[in-house]
Amino acid sequence: MNQLRVGMIGYKFMGKAHSNAYRTLPMFFPEAVKPEMAVLCGRDGQAVQRAAEQLGWRQYVTDWKELVARDDIDLIDINAPSDAHKEIALAAAKAGKHIFCEKPLALTLSDSREMLQAAEEAGVCHMVGFNYRFSPAVKLVKKLVESGRLGQIYHFRAWFLQDWILDPEFPLVWRLQKEIAGSGSHGDLGAHLIDLAHYLVGDISEVIGMSETFIKERPLADEMTGLSAKSSKGKDAPKGPVTVDDATLFLARFENGALGSFEATRFAAGHRSTNAFEINGSLGSVKFDFERMNELEVYFTSDDEDVQGFRRVVATDPAHAYAEAWWPPGHTLGFEHTFIHEVLELGEAISASRQPEPNFRDGVKCQAVLEAVERSVSERRWVDLSEM
Amino acid sequence: MNQLRVGMIGYKFMGKAHSNAYRTLPMFFPEAVKPEMAVLCGRDGQAVQRAAEQLGWRQYVTDWKELVARDDIDLIDINAPSDAHKEIALAAAKAGKHIFCEKPLALTLSDSREMLQAAEEAGVCHMVGFNYRFSPAVKLVKKLVESGRLGQIYHFRAWFLQDWILDPEFPLVWRLQKEIAGSGSHGDLGAHLIDLAHYLVGDISEVIGMSETFIKERPLADEMTGLSAKSSKGKDAPKGPVTVDDATLFLARFENGALGSFEATRFAAGHRSTNAFEINGSLGSVKFDFERMNELEVYFTSDDEDVQGFRRVVATDPAHAYAEAWWPPGHTLGFEHTFIHEVLELGEAISASRQPEPNFRDGVKCQAVLEAVERSVSERRWVDLSEM
Amino acid sequence: MNQLRVGMIGYKFMGKAHSNAYRTLPMFFPEAVKPEMAVLCGRDGQAVQRAAEQLGWRQYVTDWKELVARDDIDLIDINAPSDAHKEIALAAAKAGKHIFCEKPLALTLSDSREMLQAAEEAGVCHMVGFNYRFSPAVKLVKKLVESGRLGQIYHFRAWFLQDWILDPEFPLVWRLQKEIAGSGSHGDLGAHLIDLAHYLVGDISEVIGMSETFIKERPLADEMTGLSAKSSKGKDAPKGPVTVDDATLFLARFENGALGSFEATRFAAGHRSTNAFEINGSLGSVKFDFERMNELEVYFTSDDEDVQGFRRVVATDPAHAYAEAWWPPGHTLGFEHTFIHEVLELGEAISASRQPEPNFRDGVKCQAVLEAVERSVSERRWVDLSEM
Amino acid sequence: MNQLRVGMIGYKFMGKAHSNAYRTLPMFFPEAVKPEMAVLCGRDGQAVQRAAEQLGWRQYVTDWKELVARDDIDLIDINAPSDAHKEIALAAAKAGKHIFCEKPLALTLSDSREMLQAAEEAGVCHMVGFNYRFSPAVKLVKKLVESGRLGQIYHFRAWFLQDWILDPEFPLVWRLQKEIAGSGSHGDLGAHLIDLAHYLVGDISEVIGMSETFIKERPLADEMTGLSAKSSKGKDAPKGPVTVDDATLFLARFENGALGSFEATRFAAGHRSTNAFEINGSLGSVKFDFERMNELEVYFTSDDEDVQGFRRVVATDPAHAYAEAWWPPGHTLGFEHTFIHEVLELGEAISASRQPEPNFRDGVKCQAVLEAVERSVSERRWVDLSEM
Repeated sequence: MNQLRVGMIGYKFMGKAHSNAYRTLPMFFPEAVKPEMAVLCGRDGQAVQRAAEQLGWRQYVTDWKELVARDDIDLIDINAPSDAHKEIALAAAKAGKHIFCEKPLALTLSDSREMLQAAEEAGVCHMVGFNYRFSPAVKLVKKLVESGRLGQIYHFRAWFLQDWILDPEFPLVWRLQKEIAGSGSHGDLGAHLIDLAHYLVGDISEVIGMSETFIKERPLADEMTGLSAKSSKGKDAPKGPVTVDDATLFLARFENGALGSFEATRFAAGHRSTNAFEINGSLGSVKFDFERMNELEVYFTSDDEDVQGFRRVVATDPAHAYAEAWWPPGHTLGFEHTFIHEVLELGEAISASRQPEPNFRDGVKCQAVLEAVERSVSERRWVDLSEM
Repeated sequence: MNQLRVGMIGYKFMGKAHSNAYRTLPMFFPEAVKPEMAVLCGRDGQAVQRAAEQLGWRQYVTDWKELVARDDIDLIDINAPSDAHKEIALAAAKAGKHIFCEKPLALTLSDSREMLQAAEEAGVCHMVGFNYRFSPAVKLVKKLVESGRLGQIYHFRAWFLQDWILDPEFPLVWRLQKEIAGSGSHGDLGAHLIDLAHYLVGDISEVIGMSETFIKERPLADEMTGLSAKSSKGKDAPKGPVTVDDATLFLARFENGALGSFEATRFAAGHRSTNAFEINGSLGSVKFDFERMNELEVYFTSDDEDVQGFRRVVATDPAHAYAEAWWPPGHTLGFEHTFIHEVLELGEAISASRQPEPNFRDGVKCQAVLEAVERSVSERRWVDLSEM
Repeated sequence: MNQLRVGMIGYKFMGKAHSNAYRTLPMFFPEAVKPEMAVLCGRDGQAVQRAAEQLGWRQYVTDWKELVARDDIDLIDINAPSDAHKEIALAAAKAGKHIFCEKPLALTLSDSREMLQAAEEAGVCHMVGFNYRFSPAVKLVKKLVESGRLGQIYHFRAWFLQDWILDPEFPLVWRLQKEIAGSGSHGDLGAHLIDLAHYLVGDISEVIGMSETFIKERPLADEMTGLSAKSSKGKDAPKGPVTVDDATLFLARFENGALGSFEATRFAAGHRSTNAFEINGSLGSVKFDFERMNELEVYFTSDDEDVQGFRRVVATDPAHAYAEAWWPPGHTLGFEHTFIHEVLELGEAISASRQPEPNFRDGVKCQAVLEAVERSVSERRWVDLSEM
Repeated sequence: MNQLRVGMIGYKFMGKAHSNAYRTLPMFFPEAVKPEMAVLCGRDGQAVQRAAEQLGWRQYVTDWKELVARDDIDLIDINAPSDAHKEIALAAAKAGKHIFCEKPLALTLSDSREMLQAAEEAGVCHMVGFNYRFSPAVKLVKKLVESGRLGQIYHFRAWFLQDWILDPEFPLVWRLQKEIAGSGSHGDLGAHLIDLAHYLVGDISEVIGMSETFIKERPLADEMTGLSAKSSKGKDAPKGPVTVDDATLFLARFENGALGSFEATRFAAGHRSTNAFEINGSLGSVKFDFERMNELEVYFTSDDEDVQGFRRVVATDPAHAYAEAWWPPGHTLGFEHTFIHEVLELGEAISASRQPEPNFRDGVKCQAVLEAVERSVSERRWVDLSEM
């Protein structure tokens, strides 16, 4: 198999990122399976037509059920709002399609488990969109951890800081509504940190969290997407309740004994999108910040004693993942490249009839931690993951 | 009063820092009360004599009770190991001496309260050694917060990371023994973070923590101080149990609604002494790291929209605290300067017959949080500060 | 006109970057002229066929003269080795094609002038590939300078540091041969700095330089491109002379009185591709480093005196050039985006029947400075640009 | 000899730094020769008396000739304005005193040679105050270079950037007057860079420079020191000509083949005192910036290929120069510590009857480069150091 016929549902922020990935992959990874951008799906006919044209999709439809039913499609790519994930995924699995679903997998742990079960039973490949794993610098962390070059891991601390809703007049977009988004900063930002923790450190055994909604009410939006909106009526706009968390923090213990600290917030002035973590091991440490995604700071205890210090590694050398497909050393990549690498993994897995990583198991595992934290917040106690 | 006759107990790390502060103060702050380095006290006669000579103390004694009883002493400076603080402070208060006590004030909250009560009843000035308040950059944070330039505070996150006991063969110094040190990273490092939180954000209402001792046993030391030691017997050295925490993390809620995250560890490879915090408010943010103590990163939401970003302020301008007493702009200060400024405050307070800041009340407040965290760790639950 | 039929000559490093730009442009800038990737040209039939397929070109040819003669082509894109630029450009101009030529425009100033004259006489649009102008952060510098927010410019200092030929065993690729490359670090790296200086500060009036070839001989390569090569024979490989500069530095005086310092080297260990500059004006300063291309450090003298400092602006906000076409704030761009923005300008200019910026005039102006520096090196004296 | 009786002339910025060094040395380096702060000298009786008291000098005098003539003085410390250095140094040498003279040694090369000759003939120890050599991080550079760990040196680039006279209304202090200061940014700031180049890279063989005075006239000061002044008359203040350079840049070739680039300016907005350099060698590189004086960035080509990058070394470990005398690792030093280490070297040299480093030879060598640059500026040509 060297062609992958894709049907994609959703065409906003993530849809654009995925489309770009499908289009760009063959140019830089010519050995990879070539995605065919077959059909784009969205509810608003005019808008989806325009999007299909702009993003380079051959056809478009407005009914996802129709899309899922077609037999000229191999892969269903789901990046519609979170509340739509489950139903589509179940139908896609039933129709025997491979599935690439954006995170969070579903609004609840049980929904996500249902999705995993359906996909496993259908024998299809399933992937969940934790794209940050695919930064070359994060791949380098994985390699350092797995090879033992950092030794035993003692600490993982991570924070995903944004500030786009700091202004109390910013309107009530769908990402601030629990019934559509599931949760706020926790599921949107914290989910990425949790997946990175799983990927790089291991499973989490127990958690305790704290959550807050600083601004309880916001102006209703006239028109909106998940990230932006306009509210034409200014100060007099009618308001609605914010039903998700503005910030969620939690402490965690990993099964291997490491200690974890996690913070997700949309109220950190000056941080447009600081997705950062640090790992401390017995033989070394690493620091990563997605705002400088090409860089990794690395420390080794074995360095000569007069020149010990964090090294700023720019992960664009031939020794780094993906780098040779791109530009010469020192010529950096951007946010969108994580999706191109993600789609590369997806294609390779489908070709090889194996599950891609991360897949729905990872999505479920992440959801379990998300919900355990939520339970710990509402019950004000430590929650063991075995409860979930 | 323009002379302050000091008797100091202890002459190791902190004793050296205090001695340097007393000696240097008059040269750079000529208007300040001039400390007279009168008497140094330590148990080992030969060692204290040598220290007195080196550090510039006029006399020395080996019995602190004798020192406290002298009537030619105005101030007792206590920087002996933590388990000795209480008894000395009570005696000093009884003798009507002003007291400058290193942190942590005592091994327990109740001890520290007893010390506060004794000092208050005696009507003496009392100060506790939270020296990090006295970095010019921290003073700038205080000014920004108090003047409202950061707006309402939403987040405080802080970490004090060290790595000096990362090696499992590092011996069992007194700082790793509960009966002398009280606690490990928590009381030693976390205490500073808690005091900064109190100083900059406000009172804490509830906490929940997590603690770990990664290395449970260590070689006994032949000879030791708090920070370093030698164990001559190598791998065959007899071992003893580490009875304090290697790392303690906790979440906190402040009375003003801000969320706090705290981490203290001695197992963060590559961090010799990273004492860092960030504050996010509705109008701006600040970031501080003591390894770059002259710098403060500051962000304002009110900056022009095309040039918004964290500013790296080097706090050595005339507009910054203490700066004019030192060198021209851009000529930086070091760790020891925090003590000089601390002693400046102490002298000003004694002159003006007011309490210095921070004083024993701050020490008690810090101890209350430390113990609340310890209780939350052992009882695995949120602890409200009103319980303490 | 909303379609631009492109014929491109060359398909290595720059050809890949241009191809990606043509392909990606319509997805993110749907209002822009849509480039049609019509014909790719290269001498090696098999290789160019493979490249055309991988990079997405509809057809391929092996003779550039044939390409230039076709009447279904609007634009000739020249990214073949530098020694081929002139002949192709002259032919393209004669054939009435718009021209997009990589830098350096030609091997000599007189050649580049001939190219400019031919293009002007033919009335075609001409662009030269100084892609770094198209970083959003560089566009922000331009805006700050032009609007007067930095005041009168006093200093421009710039350095382009690489280390890819540091190893004396690195073979003699074409970029190290004067007859093909024209010059070494000077024309390859320094040219970008000179163009940025022209763009951001203004014209240069006089220069004096210093040049060095640290490694005089290198192994002959079996097989090579401009940037990499293999030499199968190891230490015994026959060697040939390096005929270009490894490093060139020069001082410059600008017509507006500013002082400039320029350094280009391929011998700066640890610098994969540090393309950095700083500008100091009477009202502020900026610092840029392409390894962190999304960031600009900006300082204003008008900031409140207690919070003056360089701001780290991440140029991904709606207020920044191009940003809204891409991702939400804080989601960064990479090296290749400069080419997409460059092609956007090219298309807009052709549509509007104006010259794009930078065009051959800028290429000539840059070449004049390059040659003035070379003359100053060989004659060991200041060279006034009016001489050139 | 374990006592060094010091007579010091001057008590402003440098006098304060030296006084602090003499006072602090014995506390942290108890094995060192103990300086006795015997006599302070200044022209203004009242002011010098006040300064002697504040800075801790036992006596004071107003006539430096009287001071030099005393036989209870071992060392004459000269930190008066630059135009006074020569006469005092000659007299001190004649009187058989050791001499510690601030930089620049003299206003001219021939004066500085006369001083060197006088000191050599008198057989006294002589030191020149290039204090930046004494940063632990700079000592680490020296060690790396000398041990060959950076390999052959290809590049040295350095810049000393300040902004304290950026405002055209800043008055005409003595540092802006050629007859007192000798030169402007060149001798004040550039001199430090030249000395570091000599110390770390080696001798310079030829130079060419460029100089500018951006603001030609400034208000006369009512009252002034070298760095600050007040001009009471505001806009109407009478003005006088600035007779020194605001900025001087030069290129240099070292005898060992390395290329050098130097820039000194007082017109770099945002730079209070950025004294920075970078060295690139065949095996590695280092970067230093005095605003972060405790840090050194170090790169080695021999690092594993997937973790190559500049290490941020905080030079406060036991493996670093001076560190054990101070605080635990990670507790940083400031500007003033360079002087303490400088005085340590001075004392050790005098004790051992050897010349301290840097001494008048280094001062002369620096002066030769300064003057060669000035000549190259006025004659607009390369100047070989053998001419000087």
